[in-house]
Amino acid sequence: MGPAYTSAYRYFNDDPNTKAVEKTIFDQLLVGMSSTYPDDDTYVTDSAAAATALATSHKTYNGAIAVTKEQLPLTTLLEQAKALNKTTAVVVTSQINHATPASFLAHNEHRRNYNEIADSYLQNLIAGQPIADLMLGGGQQYFTRNDKDLSKGFVEHGYHYINNMADLDRLKQLPALGLFAKKGLEPALGSQYPQRLMQMTEKALELVSASTKPFMMMVEASQIDWCGHSNDISCAMAEMDDLAKTVTLIKAYIDAHPETLLVMTADHSTGGLSLGRAGTYQWKGQSLKHIKAMPKAIAEKMLQTEQPSSIWQQTTQLALTKEQNARLVKNVADAKLERKPTKYLSRFIKQLIDEVTYTGWTTSGHDGVDVQVFAYGKGYTAFTGHQDNTDIAAILMQMVSQ
Amino acid sequence: MGPAYTSAYRYFNDDPNTKAVEKTIFDQLLVGMSSTYPDDDTYVTDSAAAATALATSHKTYNGAIAVTKEQLPLTTLLEQAKALNKTTAVVVTSQINHATPASFLAHNEHRRNYNEIADSYLQNLIAGQPIADLMLGGGQQYFTRNDKDLSKGFVEHGYHYINNMADLDRLKQLPALGLFAKKGLEPALGSQYPQRLMQMTEKALELVSASTKPFMMMVEASQIDWCGHSNDISCAMAEMDDLAKTVTLIKAYIDAHPETLLVMTADHSTGGLSLGRAGTYQWKGQSLKHIKAMPKAIAEKMLQTEQPSSIWQQTTQLALTKEQNARLVKNVADAKLERKPTKYLSRFIKQLIDEVTYTGWTTSGHDGVDVQVFAYGKGYTAFTGHQDNTDIAAILMQMVSQ
Repeated sequence: MGPAYTSAYRYFNDDPNTKAVEKTIFDQLLVGMSSTYPDDDTYVTDSAAAATALATSHKTYNGAIAVTKEQLPLTTLLEQAKALNKTTAVVVTSQINHATPASFLAHNEHRRNYNEIADSYLQNLIAGQPIADLMLGGGQQYFTRNDKDLSKGFVEHGYHYINNMADLDRLKQLPALGLFAKKGLEPALGSQYPQRLMQMTEKALELVSASTKPFMMMVEASQIDWCGHSNDISCAMAEMDDLAKTVTLIKAYIDAHPETLLVMTADHSTGGLSLGRAGTYQWKGQSLKHIKAMPKAIAEKMLQTEQPSSIWQQTTQLALTKEQNARLVKNVADAKLERKPTKYLSRFIKQLIDEVTYTGWTTSGHDGVDVQVFAYGKGYTAFTGHQDNTDIAAILMQMVSQ
Repeated sequence: MGPAYTSAYRYFNDDPNTKAVEKTIFDQLLVGMSSTYPDDDTYVTDSAAAATALATSHKTYNGAIAVTKEQLPLTTLLEQAKALNKTTAVVVTSQINHATPASFLAHNEHRRNYNEIADSYLQNLIAGQPIADLMLGGGQQYFTRNDKDLSKGFVEHGYHYINNMADLDRLKQLPALGLFAKKGLEPALGSQYPQRLMQMTEKALELVSASTKPFMMMVEASQIDWCGHSNDISCAMAEMDDLAKTVTLIKAYIDAHPETLLVMTADHSTGGLSLGRAGTYQWKGQSLKHIKAMPKAIAEKMLQTEQPSSIWQQTTQLALTKEQNARLVKNVADAKLERKPTKYLSRFIKQLIDEVTYTGWTTSGHDGVDVQVFAYGKGYTAFTGHQDNTDIAAILMQMVSQ
């Protein structure tokens, strides 16, 4: 989530009935920016190297999960907190063994070793217990495998295990493990739980606050990045909205518990997103608010009808020119002749949304722009100005050890 | 100059012989970010509306030079300073009647009225004198017109007038006017004066410091934006380098004169620049250091030879694949058949540099991303965190009036 994402969210979120552009929670909490380059000559980080930097204060190679270039383990913030007998939690919308959470909880030579990383959550113990007292996110397919059911291992360590978001209310104490999808959670856009990060974070704050022990929690709005990889602006705005509501909740928590510190940053930005394209001085992000389904779901609907234009209108409410509408009809017909009609048509729908809203992208991968740093609560001034991602971790490690 | 430009400059400037990535002057001075939207529903500002916001603390329409939507004049920071008997200066690499400087010195319904704006520099007077005691930049064609020589008008007001950069050393006192090109100054890249903004600023600081009066100076690295419009990354890095050296000089001045405040921001970002493109996790900005000429100059050389590949090697030192080299040769041949061969080939050269360095662009216009705010010296903490461009001006107006 680089600067273009928070700028976009402000304009997406702007109330057209007021003259002023409303400030967002991100605007309220901005304190600085951070560089994200990894320890090689690419200058563009992947999520593993960036998460390792934020978890351990060490630069490493793209792909590394909390290990050095020589593949030696690096102590992570959550390991440090756990060793100091603090309560520890991880809340994500990806699978809980994805690169970012993994870099706080495990050590592995490569992020793609998902089963090994899941296994290590029961092997990398401090005082006989897993690193995180609470883990909420996705990943059932790695934790309850046919040959190995790691959830039982957690239960043996005293964890309460749930696998359905509807059961979140049933969690009353730690330790606990909640896995709500096979891999990542459903995208926010069009989901039954569009604010699932906020809901999980609310429960997590309740659980970690139940005792008087200090806590450290790592919360990741994992899927902003996934929308970026997919160059999907309506997807990205829905994820940003879940994050904004989550951060608003955390800010309110800190207002009530002023000994708490929030530090928020991105591991990197994705997609080369820009507001404005092809010479036009305009960004029509507000109109994205009417889109209530993922491009894939819109494509599926269109492929089942002879009236794609009316499906477009129903699901996006974006006005098309005659030429654009004709192109839509043609692409639906073309898609039906493709081997993967939904994939083909989804891509076209995303491109048409970009065209209508003047949204630009340059890559399906990450980009090297600096990301913002937001902080609130006790000691937040330590994060003002420009810093490197490793600096953020270094300050946090010092704070945790105090 | 949005976040991608300062990130790019850091990696462009990185010393490959050291393990660390060196921090830039921008990193040292970063304090916050700013939104830039104009007073309409586009969210993407032009330079006139943005400069008006920074000069007057009022949002207006794209194109407006320090006037409201109703075309009423808005008091500018430099007018305010002049009225309070402070020394005033403008230093830019564009023509001095371009949108940004004009919004500090004049009032006009549209930025394109270049002659009217130039005329108003002699009509918009405070205590019988023009608003700026010093103006350095380009714009001879607007100030020494066949039918009207405004330079004489300035001389009548006691100004020393020079029209050659080599005469800069001859300026010994205020008021003064220096116009060093017909329109904007030559681009930094390939110029005889690659650090002309720094040179002009050094002279300006010397002149405004000669008296004990407080001063307000507006310095603009105008052409970073022009390189962005042209989607020309080597051009942009050369302009950023001139700006970096200028800011380093200003910081040293403030260290010696701690009663001084520097506030730096951009009016907007341009081009949808990104570091990384088409799925590749890499940005080869360092290799841009070897490019010593503008794409247009490279194109002109290539069109005069039968060996375009060796010209490419000499002028860029960027390694090409066989396929890229074949494409270069083909494009040179194609260009020779075009009506505007240099323009055609320049565009191809820029695109090839982008391809080799993994640089992305989305637009030939501006984009809506927030820009950074940098500050140093007395009272700099007033600009920390997120703010709107009008907030920056409001604070400065309050400071100037104290």
